[in-house]
Amino acid sequence: MDSAALIVREKEPLNVESPACVLDSFLTPNDLFFIRNHFPIPRLNPESYRLRVDGAVADPLRISYEELRAMPSRTSTVTLECAGNGRSFLQPRKSGVPWELGAIGTAEWTGVPLAHLLRRAGVDDGAVAVFVEGADRGEPTNDPKPDGEIAFARTLPIEKAQEPDVLLAYRMNARDLTPEHGFPVRAIVPGYYGMASVKWITHIEVLREWPRGYWETSEYSYWDAAEGRPIVRPLDKIRVKSAIVRPRMHEIVRPNMGYRVTGAAWSGTSEIAKVELSVDGGETWNVARLLDASRRYAWRRWEYEWRTPAQSRMCVLLSRARDSTGATQPDHHDANYGSYAINYTLPVEVFVRSSMRSSGIRTESISGRVENLVGETLL
Amino acid sequence: MDSAALIVREKEPLNVESPACVLDSFLTPNDLFFIRNHFPIPRLNPESYRLRVDGAVADPLRISYEELRAMPSRTSTVTLECAGNGRSFLQPRKSGVPWELGAIGTAEWTGVPLAHLLRRAGVDDGAVAVFVEGADRGEPTNDPKPDGEIAFARTLPIEKAQEPDVLLAYRMNARDLTPEHGFPVRAIVPGYYGMASVKWITHIEVLREWPRGYWETSEYSYWDAAEGRPIVRPLDKIRVKSAIVRPRMHEIVRPNMGYRVTGAAWSGTSEIAKVELSVDGGETWNVARLLDASRRYAWRRWEYEWRTPAQSRMCVLLSRARDSTGATQPDHHDANYGSYAINYTLPVEVFVRSSMRSSGIRTESISGRVENLVGETLL
Repeated sequence: MDSAALIVREKEPLNVESPACVLDSFLTPNDLFFIRNHFPIPRLNPESYRLRVDGAVADPLRISYEELRAMPSRTSTVTLECAGNGRSFLQPRKSGVPWELGAIGTAEWTGVPLAHLLRRAGVDDGAVAVFVEGADRGEPTNDPKPDGEIAFARTLPIEKAQEPDVLLAYRMNARDLTPEHGFPVRAIVPGYYGMASVKWITHIEVLREWPRGYWETSEYSYWDAAEGRPIVRPLDKIRVKSAIVRPRMHEIVRPNMGYRVTGAAWSGTSEIAKVELSVDGGETWNVARLLDASRRYAWRRWEYEWRTPAQSRMCVLLSRARDSTGATQPDHHDANYGSYAINYTLPVEVFVRSSMRSSGIRTESISGRVENLVGETLL
Repeated sequence: MDSAALIVREKEPLNVESPACVLDSFLTPNDLFFIRNHFPIPRLNPESYRLRVDGAVADPLRISYEELRAMPSRTSTVTLECAGNGRSFLQPRKSGVPWELGAIGTAEWTGVPLAHLLRRAGVDDGAVAVFVEGADRGEPTNDPKPDGEIAFARTLPIEKAQEPDVLLAYRMNARDLTPEHGFPVRAIVPGYYGMASVKWITHIEVLREWPRGYWETSEYSYWDAAEGRPIVRPLDKIRVKSAIVRPRMHEIVRPNMGYRVTGAAWSGTSEIAKVELSVDGGETWNVARLLDASRRYAWRRWEYEWRTPAQSRMCVLLSRARDSTGATQPDHHDANYGSYAINYTLPVEVFVRSSMRSSGIRTESISGRVENLVGETLL
């Protein structure tokens, strides 16, 4: 994990994002895949590793790494997006890891369906949830927080946990997981934000009621105001979103030329139906061409042939995706999601100029940090 | 509410604490009673005022102020303590209103038992909780928080709501409530921290399940680690506590004299069984004399005759209360309570000196802010 192309956002615990160019590749190379940790990376020994499955089950299980790898496996292509992806663009600034565009990636994950283990253990009729716990432990950071160390964990509705694509994965793009990505075994929960895909899983507990733990209330939660009074709920499905990969923020392009705008679009448990691009700040919209076949849990790349204006000027580009349920990206961030689920249409300012020499643009701005420039734009 | 003796901790919303000397009086005068607001004080018109009682009931009610005052009433003597009382002494400093000793007071409250209205409305068999909402609205301050304005509200377990001492009060020490204290009608929930005694009540809703609102998770919550994994719970009962009123922090007392140490002690739904005083930083403990008769929901004042040392020195005084359930004040703040329920034994440093002239104590320290001095002491 020493690829120079990765962008370190936090060193302890290690939080690293991909360069935005990974969105131009359908499968993200393992060594360019973003890494999101809450605590120090645990180093587990595959010989002594055991996965416990207990709680509201008929026959609790205790499974070794070798036993798991001998079980029937499945490979799924799944896009994982961190719930805080794009946080650095929020105005005003929010605390949390300052991700830009690259806390997202797509890989082929191989592992044992969680449903297989749940069937073997025999889930009780009254079960409502499955608690999935990692081996990573530490003191949480968001208030309100419990005292002392806790393990990273996440709870899935029992129906979701029993879907065939929810995996206990041990391979990523045909290679064994590395410690950074959850060796020996991690969850892959397709369609949910990345926090559900718990790494270093050592314990799965079937529950008869929903927990009210730190990871369901203080962190990775949102406010559901639909029923009159807002109630706190754990984050789950990835919301429909697209990103412009090319041009980059404040890129300079030549006038009156063909320019291929590229990007990607995704939506948690739905498929991308349409991507539109605006080159005039949202006044008018043009349909972009979708490149990849539609798959339920993977992003689709798109492109749009832009004829740049004949005159020097600044253009504001926006992309907007719609999914098969009709959900469309909003214009603004929904404050009920705090610093998560950031899926509003993000403006990309581009300078149309015949040459650098005549641009009058301060070049130090162009080499500045993208989020600062975007920040100015949004003010 | 312009008493010069009150100490303003926050102006908008208004948050005001009592001088510590109120703990020396069994009943707290209305104009010295602490005021805790979350939002601007609503000014309600008693003519148009209506209290709605609905939700899981057979017959929803809509009651005027006049009708409420015509119902059978009850008067209870109840100590209210703000859940953040003593917060300013915490090390490291915590955000929130920086209360010292005086976010507490005792009054005789007159009103209609909530149980009376619940009986009239006819509570459904499946009801588990009663949601009590005030007319005050605003944007909450703690993360995670919902977007926009919400009303202050609090939820009581159905059993608690049906206790005869839980009142919809309209009088405080025989006077009609003032706007600052909840005119026209406020809850009095004996034994619970003050946040449960919702002011300006306009809506009561009987619920079939516990809500997961802002006031049950982000603010006025604590972490219950008893069942293995910490879960967030709404604060409820006042924890056993005592305070030393005299001497004050860094007071100078004469050697070899009789000195009457005074204070108060209280515990939510239990009675105070014993108060002990240490004059040697907790090495040895002496039983203090309890002054007031024991009442379930009111504090008890206490005193202890201290023979000061013959030699000049610094003494650390500590008081420690025990209640009828055997619960005793802890030595340290429980971090699972965040910046609430601060009931550890708080050291009071006292200088024994024959005269100021020979004390060698910087007098500017003595006139400094108490919490700074206590802060240094605790480091």
